[in-house]
Amino acid sequence: MKPFVFQNPTKLYFGQGQIRHLIAETNQLGSRVLLLYGGGSIKQNGVYDAVMGSLKEAGAEVFELSGVEPNPRISTVRRGAAMCREHRIDWVLAVGGGSVIDCAKAIAAAAVFDADFWDVVSHKRSAQGALPIGTVLTLAATGSEMNAGSVITNEETQDKMGWNSPHTFPRFSILDPAYTVTVPRDHTVNGIVDMMSHVLEQYFHHDEATPVQDGFCESIMQAIVETAPQLVQDLGNVELREIIMYCGTMALNGVLSMGVTGDWANHDMEHAVSAVYDIPHGGGLAILFPHWMDVAVEQHPERFAQLAENVFGIKSAGRSPLEVGKEGIQALRNFWRSIGAPSKLSDYGIDDSRLVLMAGKATTFGPRGRFITLTLEDIADIYKRAL
Amino acid sequence: MKPFVFQNPTKLYFGQGQIRHLIAETNQLGSRVLLLYGGGSIKQNGVYDAVMGSLKEAGAEVFELSGVEPNPRISTVRRGAAMCREHRIDWVLAVGGGSVIDCAKAIAAAAVFDADFWDVVSHKRSAQGALPIGTVLTLAATGSEMNAGSVITNEETQDKMGWNSPHTFPRFSILDPAYTVTVPRDHTVNGIVDMMSHVLEQYFHHDEATPVQDGFCESIMQAIVETAPQLVQDLGNVELREIIMYCGTMALNGVLSMGVTGDWANHDMEHAVSAVYDIPHGGGLAILFPHWMDVAVEQHPERFAQLAENVFGIKSAGRSPLEVGKEGIQALRNFWRSIGAPSKLSDYGIDDSRLVLMAGKATTFGPRGRFITLTLEDIADIYKRAL
Repeated sequence: MKPFVFQNPTKLYFGQGQIRHLIAETNQLGSRVLLLYGGGSIKQNGVYDAVMGSLKEAGAEVFELSGVEPNPRISTVRRGAAMCREHRIDWVLAVGGGSVIDCAKAIAAAAVFDADFWDVVSHKRSAQGALPIGTVLTLAATGSEMNAGSVITNEETQDKMGWNSPHTFPRFSILDPAYTVTVPRDHTVNGIVDMMSHVLEQYFHHDEATPVQDGFCESIMQAIVETAPQLVQDLGNVELREIIMYCGTMALNGVLSMGVTGDWANHDMEHAVSAVYDIPHGGGLAILFPHWMDVAVEQHPERFAQLAENVFGIKSAGRSPLEVGKEGIQALRNFWRSIGAPSKLSDYGIDDSRLVLMAGKATTFGPRGRFITLTLEDIADIYKRAL
Repeated sequence: MKPFVFQNPTKLYFGQGQIRHLIAETNQLGSRVLLLYGGGSIKQNGVYDAVMGSLKEAGAEVFELSGVEPNPRISTVRRGAAMCREHRIDWVLAVGGGSVIDCAKAIAAAAVFDADFWDVVSHKRSAQGALPIGTVLTLAATGSEMNAGSVITNEETQDKMGWNSPHTFPRFSILDPAYTVTVPRDHTVNGIVDMMSHVLEQYFHHDEATPVQDGFCESIMQAIVETAPQLVQDLGNVELREIIMYCGTMALNGVLSMGVTGDWANHDMEHAVSAVYDIPHGGGLAILFPHWMDVAVEQHPERFAQLAENVFGIKSAGRSPLEVGKEGIQALRNFWRSIGAPSKLSDYGIDDSRLVLMAGKATTFGPRGRFITLTLEDIADIYKRAL
């Protein structure tokens, strides 16, 4: 494995009823709270009331910013940061999924940044600090509740970029699986694809002597493959929601990438698609990842054979790694289709008119990927396969 | 799974050459350092010089306390705490294995405690704070480098007890596997048994819907079972040392116990043996654990069958969980024996004269264990089986 530095200070409150800790956290972080949420589903499922009840009980003064977009925009970040400064906000509370949490991180950092925050998102400068951030998770997907990363879209330039800072780990995150039972099937499925993609991005590496890291990846993927088909048939099942919620957090809190350098080209490719077409991140990954695999398996079949055997239970039976690996890719395709994930860009009405534009955006910082390297042309080809 | 709270703020520097971060950490934590170590092996293998070089380069004033015992004693804790107060120590740096780190935690907390620190170790009171702690690990075993726990022995009363506090997570830990290549075979083996026991203690639980946690446990144990036999034949192999070092840390940093309640009776039983006979912790666990398993498998065979299949690759072939589980226990015995771990209390010269005394100490706080419950009599019986 590679030398690495790991630190993750986020305090996780996991399980039913953990919202009760919000009062003590509020008492600690301050009384002037910016409450951030998305489209209002939290007002229908009771989460908003539970959160407001705790904030009020803690004597907090709450300033609300709702309507955070599924692909959160820099304009919203700017608006939130202005609110923080105007109202002398002590800390930012995100109630929602990864989009809301990502936006909260950007707002919290933008509030104490001395220039326009797109400079940070676009990697021109580093964040200088951040207001404290807390989260109440309502969608199992991105893992943003326990990492320092954030993805923000510039709607004017149609760019979508990931950034992070040691300042933007949430101080605490409350993960109550009961808060996710009303998530509709398509969002549930996109979340599952997203978390599994996070594992895959880290699983595809060339580092040696990583049996524990690889086993951890396989354990999470096995749990997803076993749990997801049951969950999509039984969306209100809290126990299944709990397993999936746990998988989502563990998939991207830094544990899986200790000592390994993952690939991450699929995320770059998907961000470019979402930036241009504003499609769901998980849906884009479900479409692109198998096509990336079709390319990668030809170069490094062994890793795919391991995936096939250890996650999908495919027996090698004396066949070549390439044959076994390809059967594993087909098993992944079948699995994602079986739970209702999209499989073609045309499922979102995307045609071949802007493939090179997107490939250009995906390669803003040069060729992508570490497990295999993709040029602009390679990426355009994968988009084409995915039509 | 059960609701849980997780937070682990320790910063991990893992890999060869990571000692270079010691200078920056020293600059941050303060110039008056209490350097804690054990029997002096660090002076032979170059670790002492590397540490002192960095401390000097950072301009630190170093106060040394050496001779920390393999089972660190409360008298040493008192002496260290007095040094901290006398010399206005800023922080404590432990260079060694789990014993030295455990002692450093106790010293750091005792230095700011208003009464005798045995009150904390014996669970009468809680720690009130602690000086910052840093560690440079030289033995892969206890996981103390990335958790808040500590085990201290009262040599006068022959009690050995575990305690912890949110204040005693190391601020940072430097884990360079090259620092462990000179560890002799018996210490290496005891460390391997210790870390595997930590996994087993957490693996034996009755919580439902924990496929990820169980898979993580099995991944670490698989890696140990695969790596340890090679390592004992090739003690200077840094890559094998690295895998084992990583296993030791992950085995007890809180990740495996998210949402589950482990058993931990074997640790209570072993601490009582070590308190009376001062034997190595890992050696004691190697002796006791299989005998505990012989008892537990009769009550809950399914878990043992899973261990047998997923860690030792034993095929169930239509047999009962009890049969398969028992074969798994035999496989564990064979594995530990194959790497040279002890298997009988008499290997340490322990006879039947103080079994009830030890069983009484093990049950100071009542019956032990959560996977199965053991009374004083049950524990005396396990000691007897282990003679």
